[in-house]
Amino acid sequence: MKMIEYTDAPPRVRAVYDDIMRTRNIDWINNFWKVLASDPASLERTWASLKAIMAPGALDPLTKEMIYLAISASNGCGYCIASHGAAARKAGMSEAMFGELMAVVGMANETNALAQGWQVPVDERFRSRS
Amino acid sequence: MKMIEYTDAPPRVRAVYDDIMRTRNIDWINNFWKVLASDPASLERTWASLKAIMAPGALDPLTKEMIYLAISASNGCGYCIASHGAAARKAGMSEAMFGELMAVVGMANETNALAQGWQVPVDERFRSRS
Amino acid sequence: MKMIEYTDAPPRVRAVYDDIMRTRNIDWINNFWKVLASDPASLERTWASLKAIMAPGALDPLTKEMIYLAISASNGCGYCIASHGAAARKAGMSEAMFGELMAVVGMANETNALAQGWQVPVDERFRSRS
Amino acid sequence: MKMIEYTDAPPRVRAVYDDIMRTRNIDWINNFWKVLASDPASLERTWASLKAIMAPGALDPLTKEMIYLAISASNGCGYCIASHGAAARKAGMSEAMFGELMAVVGMANETNALAQGWQVPVDERFRSRS
Amino acid sequence: MKMIEYTDAPPRVRAVYDDIMRTRNIDWINNFWKVLASDPASLERTWASLKAIMAPGALDPLTKEMIYLAISASNGCGYCIASHGAAARKAGMSEAMFGELMAVVGMANETNALAQGWQVPVDERFRSRS
Amino acid sequence: MKMIEYTDAPPRVRAVYDDIMRTRNIDWINNFWKVLASDPASLERTWASLKAIMAPGALDPLTKEMIYLAISASNGCGYCIASHGAAARKAGMSEAMFGELMAVVGMANETNALAQGWQVPVDERFRSRS
Repeated sequence: MKMIEYTDAPPRVRAVYDDIMRTRNIDWINNFWKVLASDPASLERTWASLKAIMAPGALDPLTKEMIYLAISASNGCGYCIASHGAAARKAGMSEAMFGELMAVVGMANETNALAQGWQVPVDERFRSRS
Repeated sequence: MKMIEYTDAPPRVRAVYDDIMRTRNIDWINNFWKVLASDPASLERTWASLKAIMAPGALDPLTKEMIYLAISASNGCGYCIASHGAAARKAGMSEAMFGELMAVVGMANETNALAQGWQVPVDERFRSRS
Repeated sequence: MKMIEYTDAPPRVRAVYDDIMRTRNIDWINNFWKVLASDPASLERTWASLKAIMAPGALDPLTKEMIYLAISASNGCGYCIASHGAAARKAGMSEAMFGELMAVVGMANETNALAQGWQVPVDERFRSRS
Repeated sequence: MKMIEYTDAPPRVRAVYDDIMRTRNIDWINNFWKVLASDPASLERTWASLKAIMAPGALDPLTKEMIYLAISASNGCGYCIASHGAAARKAGMSEAMFGELMAVVGMANETNALAQGWQVPVDERFRSRS
Repeated sequence: MKMIEYTDAPPRVRAVYDDIMRTRNIDWINNFWKVLASDPASLERTWASLKAIMAPGALDPLTKEMIYLAISASNGCGYCIASHGAAARKAGMSEAMFGELMAVVGMANETNALAQGWQVPVDERFRSRS
Repeated sequence: MKMIEYTDAPPRVRAVYDDIMRTRNIDWINNFWKVLASDPASLERTWASLKAIMAPGALDPLTKEMIYLAISASNGCGYCIASHGAAARKAGMSEAMFGELMAVVGMANETNALAQGWQVPVDERFRSRS
């Protein structure tokens, strides 16, 4: 797997790396971006979307990182669990919060399977709202 | 799909229905439980787990419902999106929060696929922690 | 969605329909095959594989149908849950068996998510075997 | 990844470990539980559910373990494939049975995708039942 | 489900609708965008990414639409199968091509499950390359 | 994991290995087949289906390999990404094509989640066609 280091990066890639480090207030680039840098258009677009989506808004950054981690755990993406687990902890997730987060993820996957397998029809009360 | 109504429910099922209504402070039972009631052991166990997991703890109920909704959206479980979407709104999720929640879910699914497809190796810095 | 009925089917498709009805000892064709018949090569290949895989062997037909149903429930494929649920019931699955089957499917999805999210390392004892 | 060994476990965790070893008639604890023990409430709840669901009932333990393994293979959970593969073999699954099990899992994933991609409508005959 | 029609759309949303219709050379907006318009930031970002990714490049638009459709079928997203099926047909996908596309999607899902369930180790020859 | 080498293979397995090498014009067998050879019926059936499905038809081999790779990346099957990534490159996929392929796969997974989470109703215009 080719990874493009900062010193070898063309200006277009280096600009993204600089923005990542500035935005996150860190001095290194994690492998996801170094790999994606082989396709500079994907690198730029993915970072721009991630930066916008994860910025504080109606939801705070910790909640957003925990949701990201929840999806990654459910999908079994090892890299994403490692990177977003680290990000969530940096944003304030305690071990107790992680334990409860995983419990909700596990339970949701269990009842998703039950609702689908039993073919539960949606309640009228839920339909009227959504 | 057979659904067991309160008036037709045997005592074991009725006890669960009563606890659901008391815990949630509502006066009706949604279809998921009425369908699952065909297997009383599953009904009891699933409700007991859900009640314990979704109670306030290190994470507040709104955050838990949003995580539940995030997993359900990612898995494409229509019933679960409807029921936990309603629960999250009742717990305080605004439309702006829902929009950001979905954006994070979408982004996580996108980058999960990218990290897997590009086969990104986990950074040593992430390994040392997790 | 175009569906090819027996009377309109070309000989190549009709031969598959005849084999399905003979093998299953029934007098009708379910929609899956009528839709797939638009691509006769897929129809032939899919039926040939299904017929071979679902025949009695080291596992009996009921166990095979229940496994098929388990996967379909986990994947949330509505059509597959309906058709393989009917097949499993025809092969002898009782409602009590269905309830326990769904409980196992739900539990497996829950602990799959937990094992992935917590990133549990595989035990040496398990590695030596598999 | 922190794992809590028996000798370091607080009483609440040790009680679960003891019940796991007694129920399974073994003298060691696999990593899943040692990792989950960081969140004792999750450990207790997950073990209690698993113990109840996997006990003999309308389905025998071998069938239950094979269904568990089928879901784990379909979800690509490496840890779960290793642990439930071992459990299924211990419960009597032969290599021939494993081969057929995997064939059914593969076929179900194939036709699930076909039924969804071709958007096959559910037959009236199936609807009337489920 | 709230959908924002062109005539009711605020300028920010209308600008995206105009660009969608201009880019695709059509005179209507499909429901995906009308629903997403409830969150204008998501609407803008999602359209900008989709427009850039689906433009002709190293891959032609037909190939891109078929890949999009393949993922949607594999994930069982009904809306996405309908919309990207229509887009792929408009871009030149014949029924024979659709049949083969679905066959590949089905086969990939089958062998993905087999490779995971059998826990096949990656060949050294493949590692050296990727 | 047991792998059956050519020199140790029984005639039934060797016949499949010979056909794989002849069809692909190579002189080695990758691990997937060596593992699957423990179940000769699965080996024969899986190879026969794969050979037929991946042959040139309405879609060319490169497009088929890229679709296979797209599904494998979306499912997170490491072995399949390695083997079909190699196959796609051998069939002519450039690094630029791979980058765009991954971008489409990522985007499709993102909008699949959005369409499901927002519960977008299918447009009448799409229904009339499919």
